[in-house]
Amino acid sequence: MEKLKHLIESQQFTPEILFYLFNKADELRLKTQETLKGKIMATLFYEPSTRTRLSFESAMLKLGGQVLSTENAKDFSSSVKGESLHDTSIVVSSYADVIVMRHYEDGAAKKAAEVSKVPIINAGDGKGQHPTQALLDMYTIYRELGRLNNLKVAMVGDLASGRTVRSLSYLLGKFTGNEIILVSPPHLRMKDDVKEYLKKHNTPLREESDINKILPEADIIYMVRTQKERISLEDYKKVEKQKTKLTISSKNFNLIKSDARIMHPLPKVDEIDLPVEVEQNDKRVAYFRQAENGLFIRMAFLDFMLG
Amino acid sequence: MEKLKHLIESQQFTPEILFYLFNKADELRLKTQETLKGKIMATLFYEPSTRTRLSFESAMLKLGGQVLSTENAKDFSSSVKGESLHDTSIVVSSYADVIVMRHYEDGAAKKAAEVSKVPIINAGDGKGQHPTQALLDMYTIYRELGRLNNLKVAMVGDLASGRTVRSLSYLLGKFTGNEIILVSPPHLRMKDDVKEYLKKHNTPLREESDINKILPEADIIYMVRTQKERISLEDYKKVEKQKTKLTISSKNFNLIKSDARIMHPLPKVDEIDLPVEVEQNDKRVAYFRQAENGLFIRMAFLDFMLG
Amino acid sequence: MEKLKHLIESQQFTPEILFYLFNKADELRLKTQETLKGKIMATLFYEPSTRTRLSFESAMLKLGGQVLSTENAKDFSSSVKGESLHDTSIVVSSYADVIVMRHYEDGAAKKAAEVSKVPIINAGDGKGQHPTQALLDMYTIYRELGRLNNLKVAMVGDLASGRTVRSLSYLLGKFTGNEIILVSPPHLRMKDDVKEYLKKHNTPLREESDINKILPEADIIYMVRTQKERISLEDYKKVEKQKTKLTISSKNFNLIKSDARIMHPLPKVDEIDLPVEVEQNDKRVAYFRQAENGLFIRMAFLDFMLG
Repeated sequence: MEKLKHLIESQQFTPEILFYLFNKADELRLKTQETLKGKIMATLFYEPSTRTRLSFESAMLKLGGQVLSTENAKDFSSSVKGESLHDTSIVVSSYADVIVMRHYEDGAAKKAAEVSKVPIINAGDGKGQHPTQALLDMYTIYRELGRLNNLKVAMVGDLASGRTVRSLSYLLGKFTGNEIILVSPPHLRMKDDVKEYLKKHNTPLREESDINKILPEADIIYMVRTQKERISLEDYKKVEKQKTKLTISSKNFNLIKSDARIMHPLPKVDEIDLPVEVEQNDKRVAYFRQAENGLFIRMAFLDFMLG
Repeated sequence: MEKLKHLIESQQFTPEILFYLFNKADELRLKTQETLKGKIMATLFYEPSTRTRLSFESAMLKLGGQVLSTENAKDFSSSVKGESLHDTSIVVSSYADVIVMRHYEDGAAKKAAEVSKVPIINAGDGKGQHPTQALLDMYTIYRELGRLNNLKVAMVGDLASGRTVRSLSYLLGKFTGNEIILVSPPHLRMKDDVKEYLKKHNTPLREESDINKILPEADIIYMVRTQKERISLEDYKKVEKQKTKLTISSKNFNLIKSDARIMHPLPKVDEIDLPVEVEQNDKRVAYFRQAENGLFIRMAFLDFMLG
Repeated sequence: MEKLKHLIESQQFTPEILFYLFNKADELRLKTQETLKGKIMATLFYEPSTRTRLSFESAMLKLGGQVLSTENAKDFSSSVKGESLHDTSIVVSSYADVIVMRHYEDGAAKKAAEVSKVPIINAGDGKGQHPTQALLDMYTIYRELGRLNNLKVAMVGDLASGRTVRSLSYLLGKFTGNEIILVSPPHLRMKDDVKEYLKKHNTPLREESDINKILPEADIIYMVRTQKERISLEDYKKVEKQKTKLTISSKNFNLIKSDARIMHPLPKVDEIDLPVEVEQNDKRVAYFRQAENGLFIRMAFLDFMLG
């Protein structure tokens, strides 16, 4: 199994790599190993994302490594666009053994990888990809349901802006028997490139506009937040009007199959509105376990790339 | 002596715990021990407070632990209020062994503690409490004057917004023979809940408006900053007009008893206006030693909670 | 060789110290040594400068030390000016073994050093100095050209605001046979104090306005960015009009001597506009190696000061 030089997009994960990482994550969950002692990770975040950053940093520290942290790399971006990212990537790659990068522009991670002396891990670039999120999503599905194939997966919400659903779709297309249901307001549909990829990989997909219609059949209901900051105010208001068609609450929770799971990349806002008791006790609520899985799978991935 | 699960308010400190921590802090001042190797602290600051954050982080590093740092957790707070803090606490408690939280809302730490899987340490919540500040204040009084009872303690300044004076009052009420003098502009008096607590604990208190009146009698003069950011502009202007009644300067410094101490949680602005020579050489100026004590008592507390 | 108590300005570096540090840096480049285990560095940045901060932090971590990081220390500066820096320096010096400070005011580092209990390293103060930048610049010149004397050094750009050119000039004046050419728009000339220093040290200098005139003769072409944030809009527009006289591009690149070097403290904007192939393959482009040298020379310096 060949190591990855950089992690730019979820398509780079073969099933072989996925299952290797799942096993490694299970192993690290039981017993931490200091395999990255003396190594330094730089988190270079041009957009704040405390959850993702802390998850990566915790993973690195638990493996015995150290962290250079950048909560807000805007002062870099004051330089001329493109040029600046180019220079920054060269310079920061002199200081660290791996760079975890979050950027507001699609394709930023790829550009950085072209010049960096050390591995770049894409932690989200614009409306592009977020491959380690897809990795933890697949890991969660596997832990929760015991398989990555023959799944009916509904993705619900603002599918136009959500990079997590893009990255996840690419991975689901690698396994047989999966079916994807895209539930979004008509003006925030998933983009064509993902749909074409799924067609090529013989993954059936259909589009819906009302969550209540798909709750009784989905194995995985993958909810995403409306990315207010990436769409127009007008588009946002349209979503508000269709709220009930895009929300899980006490009213429709019982439509969900007993062995299905609700997932969410977090942070969630009001697209999931369930009582604390349900969140804590009903096994169909998987999103907090999903977040925790992020730590262990990122440990596994860092160990795989740098160990 | 039972360990605390979370630290939310200063009332949780029994005299037994206090003296245990004072001894431990004295011990760690002489010789650092790496008792928290492999442990991770997350500092989750919704309001910046570099002093408090650095003090906690330094304490953790000196004990051999590691730190996940969040200087500015506002991106979390973009989520719906309450819900967001709830989710964040669950998620971050997956990444760390202890969370140190500063929040702009009263009661935030308590809410976080309800769902966190790891100990929450309240590092200030709104106008609520700041228990480790009270801890280092008590430690300072004990180191400086050798006792925690039979003290006349004046608290001077904006007592309506200051959470440090609230937390300190709760601890002073646990010891006998203490008397508290609350010196504030009439519109920024200490709130009733603290006054009632002190009455219940038989701690005499009186209210004054002019610092010059109490300087000759107080053992501890605890100065606080006017929290401009928490009061109205009008209220702030009223304070400005009474400045001389709320300030220690060369003019009234000599009214202070020779064995008394001036304390301040810092940062101070102009409520203390003394020459550098006095600050460096007069033993009555205790606030820089007080800040340093914060490091050692936080080391002691982290060791007590996690060691 | 006496250790420095604080590092405030580049004049503090004697040739003896410089060569000691160059050797140490070469040594650490080959093999890292954990000489600062148990030591803590606080980076106190009142102005963001991710490159400088990460370089120092990486250096500290590689030497086995730990880091307290402050990307944005503005909340300190909300206190009354001067007074605040004084207090902050006292307090933070209780938490760390060394403070690396970037400040927006000239002379800030010196003020901090007056009260700090631990060494202060000036990482740039206003339009003042940036001595470790000068250190890495000298190290780069020495590595690239094998000597620090008999050099014709052109400094090009906004010489009024650039603290790096100020600090570098002071060091170049310590060696014999150097000549400095100051190329700047007439309204952004180097300040008189530096010119007088160079005169006293018998270092010839002349002023020019067009880079094309000096490219064929300079051994080192040290380019600096126009510090838009430190000059008036009107002054900035004047620079824009003289752009071609202050830029290196494909058009004038071949005027440069074959054994000369282009240096830049980075970030660069458009004052250097060369194709990626040239940047990667032409040995005259030294600025990315220069940035990398910053890591090793800072390791050497930290080891020298604290080891």
